[in-house]
Parts: sequence; structure tokens; C-alpha cells
Amino acid sequence: MGALEEAHLAACGCDEDDDEDLVVLGGGGEEAGDAMEAAVRELLVGLGEDDRRDGLRRTPKRVAKAFRDGTLGYKQKVKDIVQGALFPEVGVDKRTGSAGGTGGQVVVRDIDLFSYCESCLLPFSIQCHVGYVPSGGRVVGLSKLSRVADVFAKRFQSPQRLANEVCSALHASIQPAGVAVALQCWHIPLPENLKCKSSQGLIRASHSSRSGVFEGENSSFWNDFVALLKLRGIDMEMDSHSAIIVPWCPLRPHEVPLCNGHGKRMATNGAISPKSGSAPSNMVSAVSSMLLSLGEDPLRKELVGSPQRYVQWLMRFRACNLDVKLNGFTLNGANVYERPVEDATDHRAISSELHLPFCAQCEHHLLPFYGVVHIGYFGSEDCEGIDRSHFQALVHFYGCKLQVQERMTRQIAEAVYSISHRGAVVVVEANHICMISRGIEKIRSSTATIAVLGHFLTDSSAKASFLQNIIDTADLEE
Amino acid sequence: MGALEEAHLAACGCDEDDDEDLVVLGGGGEEAGDAMEAAVRELLVGLGEDDRRDGLRRTPKRVAKAFRDGTLGYKQKVKDIVQGALFPEVGVDKRTGSAGGTGGQVVVRDIDLFSYCESCLLPFSIQCHVGYVPSGGRVVGLSKLSRVADVFAKRFQSPQRLANEVCSALHASIQPAGVAVALQCWHIPLPENLKCKSSQGLIRASHSSRSGVFEGENSSFWNDFVALLKLRGIDMEMDSHSAIIVPWCPLRPHEVPLCNGHGKRMATNGAISPKSGSAPSNMVSAVSSMLLSLGEDPLRKELVGSPQRYVQWLMRFRACNLDVKLNGFTLNGANVYERPVEDATDHRAISSELHLPFCAQCEHHLLPFYGVVHIGYFGSEDCEGIDRSHFQALVHFYGCKLQVQERMTRQIAEAVYSISHRGAVVVVEANHICMISRGIEKIRSSTATIAVLGHFLTDSSAKASFLQNIIDTADLEE
Repeated sequence: MGALEEAHLAACGCDEDDDEDLVVLGGGGEEAGDAMEAAVRELLVGLGEDDRRDGLRRTPKRVAKAFRDGTLGYKQKVKDIVQGALFPEVGVDKRTGSAGGTGGQVVVRDIDLFSYCESCLLPFSIQCHVGYVPSGGRVVGLSKLSRVADVFAKRFQSPQRLANEVCSALHASIQPAGVAVALQCWHIPLPENLKCKSSQGLIRASHSSRSGVFEGENSSFWNDFVALLKLRGIDMEMDSHSAIIVPWCPLRPHEVPLCNGHGKRMATNGAISPKSGSAPSNMVSAVSSMLLSLGEDPLRKELVGSPQRYVQWLMRFRACNLDVKLNGFTLNGANVYERPVEDATDHRAISSELHLPFCAQCEHHLLPFYGVVHIGYFGSEDCEGIDRSHFQALVHFYGCKLQVQERMTRQIAEAVYSISHRGAVVVVEANHICMISRGIEKIRSSTATIAVLGHFLTDSSAKASFLQNIIDTADLEE
Repeated sequence: MGALEEAHLAACGCDEDDDEDLVVLGGGGEEAGDAMEAAVRELLVGLGEDDRRDGLRRTPKRVAKAFRDGTLGYKQKVKDIVQGALFPEVGVDKRTGSAGGTGGQVVVRDIDLFSYCESCLLPFSIQCHVGYVPSGGRVVGLSKLSRVADVFAKRFQSPQRLANEVCSALHASIQPAGVAVALQCWHIPLPENLKCKSSQGLIRASHSSRSGVFEGENSSFWNDFVALLKLRGIDMEMDSHSAIIVPWCPLRPHEVPLCNGHGKRMATNGAISPKSGSAPSNMVSAVSSMLLSLGEDPLRKELVGSPQRYVQWLMRFRACNLDVKLNGFTLNGANVYERPVEDATDHRAISSELHLPFCAQCEHHLLPFYGVVHIGYFGSEDCEGIDRSHFQALVHFYGCKLQVQERMTRQIAEAVYSISHRGAVVVVEANHICMISRGIEKIRSSTATIAVLGHFLTDSSAKASFLQNIIDTADLEE
């Protein structure tokens, strides 16, 4: 879109690429918004970017909006949600029933939520399971369990505090015999720890919280809750054991989680290791000012150090000259093609490097997108000696920066084509955290892009063979 | 909640159990809302219910709101969504690239949506996959593909028209080289066709639509699109073949779908068979007036007959005296317990009937909830001769009406306990369509309730054995 066209759109009152703004913002928040946007602009400049270039010009507005939407919970009141949704319901006979009220336990399983990690300010995703035992002859509308959980998810959180706060709030507002909350959470790892199958690289944590009749080692209500989760294949006990060795927030590598025996994890106040120098102080101050704008207290003990960690994360995607990493790409070595695929049609050799992991930063929203790159090309003499490590370096070069998936796909394809002049095909599959945290209908969505150059354009069987190869190897990869 | 308490809440301005209203409604729509609510009240009375009883008093307000929210798409403009979100992006070199623009094809897979069936006015759920080939040196923000799809989903639709409208709208607004849309849709069947594993009973349909470079039998773009979906395990071709024999909307049983060879399904204008007499005309008129209030034209040809079908659906849950169906429950017969489970602790026989399907109508939202009931009890002489068919009749009696899951669980448990005086345990697992269509974060959620009576309260190993039995048999059931 040219500048002229954009000016026209602005004149039409369409200079807003997210009209969700209209609903959420209403009239207020203008000044705080401006402060947020100025802070984001400072971050972009700190990353070595031109904040006026296309694609970045409205990024401050988008980032500010994402943070505002993601922390809406600070402005919501549980009382307002629950109060009108308590329904009188005759209870199980007290002489015979276990519920002291109304028909036993109620569990809503598999509620999709996302929250923001208070340690690094990046979003994390959640599957939330809530149970309660009604009391006082009343039950709460089922959807309210999910809505209350969302109030506390839409804040800066740790998984355990989130579980505790949801549990306490439901207990106070419904006044049931007890509440049980179980969370399964997924945090993005450091880029270098992403595995080929992106979901396997995510950091998992399971946390729970209980009140009233769910408390105690031998609570039969808790045992029923655990059993009702198992009916959906959710095993909280196994989860809490398997997730125990990795720190939750990868930006706090020295925080070793401990298990307290209840399937909960407790964090020690381990030393934070800020790589000093990697987080310029003006950028850190900018992030602190963003927290203030959101109504948070940057001096709250859980948030001390978080702006620095967020900047450290961002600085991994700093614009810089990485061409040197690509030098290997033109060197001759000993290896020839890995995984050669014979084309059934005309027997030309197709080479491919599949499932190369990457982590990029979406330039529209300053949030990670991550996944795998698949590269196919027709071999030629120029390609001899190029091995997987060279392709991984190429992916890193084009991926590890402020990017959009479409451009990254094209750039990798053109780079491969510049070596393998006969043909190149590149598929990028990615999960965009900006999609997850900005609209829950997209929580499971995944984006695939493909660029096709040279012979692959005309040789459809060669391309089909490459694509089939991705499917065939999907389960083999780690 | 007593009348006094409710009056107090009303005085506080909390007389609204869904404060989502505050966001969506804003100031307008009052009068139309009143007309909608009067119509819903007419439906409740027609169903033999007392519309002033607790649980139903605010149902008209909730139903009206659900229909308004679910059809918001009529008021949204695609232009507003897309216009500000077109980003300039350098294209693949035209001499070598396939895209005539920018880097090839872009596909967003697995977008969760729901829509309303125009034949029967019940919601159906959708997994939506959208692809396009950029042109003119610009790409669209990824999240906009999902948001445009949602504009057309939030209307009264048929799956094929939904696919067509999303495709056309994206083509017109992005002006790409082409657009491909693939939908996987699930419709609730008639209650009697629900299977034990509820998801297997749903009616599936796959539909697609294409424009530009995706058109034609041998479009390589279409082939790539299909391949990129396969990378996520989505097989549109297989889907369209397997779903071909069942009519989409079960309230139009004589509409036989035809395949047109493109994986699309086309419907014949088969005869509608309204069971005359089962849809009182005042109720049908009420539903027509609701459509008018929503800005729809009840005379639009796709909607003729829909109010009648919706009323036919509702009338299946009419309050009526079904006690006669339970007569068998007290008869003595030849069968003894099925699936007896020996309790390891004290060897008393636990009997169970698992995975009994049901379909109820949520009394708060006039929308179906459906799933399975599991019943366990300690055998006694009084239970002799009771077999699965009796329990199924019991489940039908308490399930097939305006209900809430908590009450249904208690009622079934107490009914079983009245026969098996030693102990009864009942688990109900359900998907609530009101949860799906009123908040997308709950689209995967599922609710479990449990009621425990008699010996099962104290004998935890007996209860554990019953719960384990459900897990063990989950995969065996149809």
C-alpha cells in the first residue's frame, strides 16, 4: 500500500487496523495509550529498527492495545459476573447426599485461556479445569466459572497464583462447600530450545488450588475431581511430575521449581541472572512505564526484573548484520544432499531439509511466532557441500528478527534459489502468539505459507513429492 | 435465590446475569429486544412450562441475547475489518515466482467458529481453513482472515453458502490472485440419533469454495492448499466422501445431499416434511417475529419453514407426563445385573450402566446439552430384573425436557437410590451448546457432574472402582 493510499484510508477514518479497538477502548484511555505507544516506539528504535517503516508504523498502537486487552482483568469485578447467575436448586437429601446441598460436584473441563507471565511479560496459554460443590441450595451458571477464571487470567500472573486467585474468588462469590482449580499451562521456551515439533518445545506446568471440602490429603471430593478430569484424558498427577525439572519462565533460568507434594509447584526465589548490557536501560524504563500505564505497580515484588527480562527477550531479535553466519552457505564441504528423493517422473534429484525449527518476532505485534521450515530444492553442483546446519543458519538469519511469515518464506526461498538455480520450494508452518492472545477463536489456529520457484512451478509431481515427504516425516521428528 | 434477594440485586443494577450484554448491546436495540423476549415467553408457555418459575424467569432475556450475539455479523462490514490491515510486501520475483506477487500462498488453519443453521435455527460448530495467494504487492494481517470468516458465520447459514460468502468477501476486499475456503462443520443430530460417544453422533459436513487461481480441476494452488491442510491431519477429500450419505440438517430429513465432484455438497430442494400438529402456529409465529427482530427476512426462501422446524425441535422437549415410560422400572424381569464389578475390599456387588446417551434442553438458554450418563449402584433384590433399557428410559425421562445438568444428575441419582437403597452414584458428562455459542473460549469445554448417595459416600474404593470402569470402557463404546 503506497503512502498516498494510506493517507486516503486515514482520511476515511480507517487508520486503525484493529477495529476491535472500537469495542474495547470506548472513549477513555487516550493519554495512557499515548504513553504506551511512545514506550513501544522506544523499544523499536532500541532494536535497531526504523519505527516509521511500513509494517512498524502502527506497531506501537497494536502492542499497546494487545497489552491493554490482555490485562483487562484488572478492571473487572467477579461480583458483577457471578451475582446475577446464582440459581436456586433443590439439593440432594441431606440425610443421604454428599453435597450438603445440591446434587454433588460440578466440573467444567478444558476452558481455553491465556495469561501474561509476570516474569517476562510474554503471553502463555492455559487449559483450565474448575470444580465446585454447591451449597446453600444454589448453583452458579456454568459459563460463569469460565468467565471468573478469565478475569484473573487477563493479568500478569504466575500459574500458581492464577490458580489460587480463581479458587479464592469463586469460593467467596459462590459460597459453595468447596472449589477446586487445575491448570495446565504452556510457556514459550528460549528460541534455542524450540524443538522441531513446536508443541513439544513448549514449557509445561500443572498447578492446582483447592478450598473447603476439597482440602486435605484424603478428600473424596478432590479424588472425584481428579477422576472426572481423567475421563477427558487429563492426568494432573502425571503432569505435575513430568513438568518438574524445567523452570517455568525461561527468562529466569535459575528459578528451580519445587513440588510441595500436592501436585503444586513452588518456586524458590532463585537468583535472577540479568545479562547486564543486553538490556539497555532506556528500553527497560520504557517497559516499566508501560506497566504503570496498565495500572500495574512495577515495584510489586513479582514484577521487579520483569521489564529487564522482556527487553532481554526482545533483544534476541535485534536487527543486526548476521551475514557472517551465512558464509558457510557458499563454502564447499564434504557432504552431499541429505535425504535425496527420487522423482518418479523424470528422476531428477530433489533434496530436502525438513522440520527446521525457528522462532521469529511478529513485527506487527512484537510477539513471537514459531514453528518449522521445510526446504526443498533441485540439486546442482553449486549446492554440493551444503548441509542441514547451513539451512538452519539460513532460517535463523531470516527468522530471528522482527518479521512477517510471508516475507520470511519468500526470503528463504529466494536465498535457496540463488544457490540451487533449478528450483526451490519452501513451506513455513507457524503458531502466532499474537493470534492466540488477541482473539480466542484463533487459539488452535496455525499458519502455513509456501513459496515455489523455478522447476517446482512446472513440475507438479516434484512439488507433490516434497509435500508428501513432509507428511511422512512429521511423526519421525523429535 | 429468593425473590427478596433477587429484588435487591435488581435494585443494585445487577439484574442481568450476562454482563456481556453491557459490551455488545450498548444503548440500542431495546424495543427489538422486548419483542424477542415476548416471543421466547410464548415458546416457554407453549412448551408447557411456567415462564415465571426460577431458572426460566430470565430465559427470554438470555435467549434474545444469544440470538442477537450469534447474528452480529449482519451488522458488520468486511471493508472495515480488512481495509486498514493490508501491508505492502515485496513480491517474489515475477520471472521466477508463482504468486504474481508476494511469496506464494498463505493458509490459516483450524479457526474455531460457530454459526446458526438456517434450516432449524440451532447453532453448529465449524473448523475453518482459509488460504489466499497475495497479489498487488500486499498481504493482509493474518487475524483478519479469521475475523472476516466470523462476520459471515454469525448469521443464519448453510455451510456451503458460508464458504461461498467468506470466499467472495475476501476476494473482493483483499483483491488477491485467489482465495480458498474449506469448512468442517458439525450439527447436532436428532436426540434419538445421538450415540454414546457424543462427538460420534454429530452430523459432519465438509464444504469448500474457491476463486481466482484456485479454480479449475488442476489448479496447483488448490493442490498446495489441500496439501498444507493435510500437514495438520485435515483431509478435505476424505471428509467430503464420508459425510455424503446423511442430510446436513436433521430437521430436514428428506434433503439428500449431492456431491458435485469438487468436494462440495449440493442440496436438492427435497420435500420438507413438517409434522403438522407438532408445531403450534402461535409458537411458529413467535419465532418468525424473532427473525424479524434480528433484521432477517422470514420469507427469504432458505428460511421458509425454519421457524416451524425450530419449534418442532423444541417440542421434543415439551413438559409432559412421561411417568408411564418408567413403569418398567418397577417390574420384575429375567435379567440380573449387567457388568457386575466385584469390589476388592468387601466383595459386595456393584452394578453399573455406563455411557447412556441423552439430549436435554438447557432451561437457561433454550439450547441443547447432550452427552452420556453413567450409573452405578449396589445391587439388592429390588433391582432384579432392571436392565439397560430401564435405565435408558430413566435418563430419557429426566433428560428430555428443559433442564439443568446439576438437577438432572441429582434426580437420576435419587431415582436409582429409591430402588437400590444401599447406594447410588451418577456421573453426567455433557457438551453445552450454550457454552459453545456464547463464548468461544469455551468451545472445547465439557461439563461433568457427579452425585453420590448411600454406601458410595463411605466406601471410597467402590466409588473409585466405578469411576475406573468408566475410563476403561470409554474406548469400547460406539
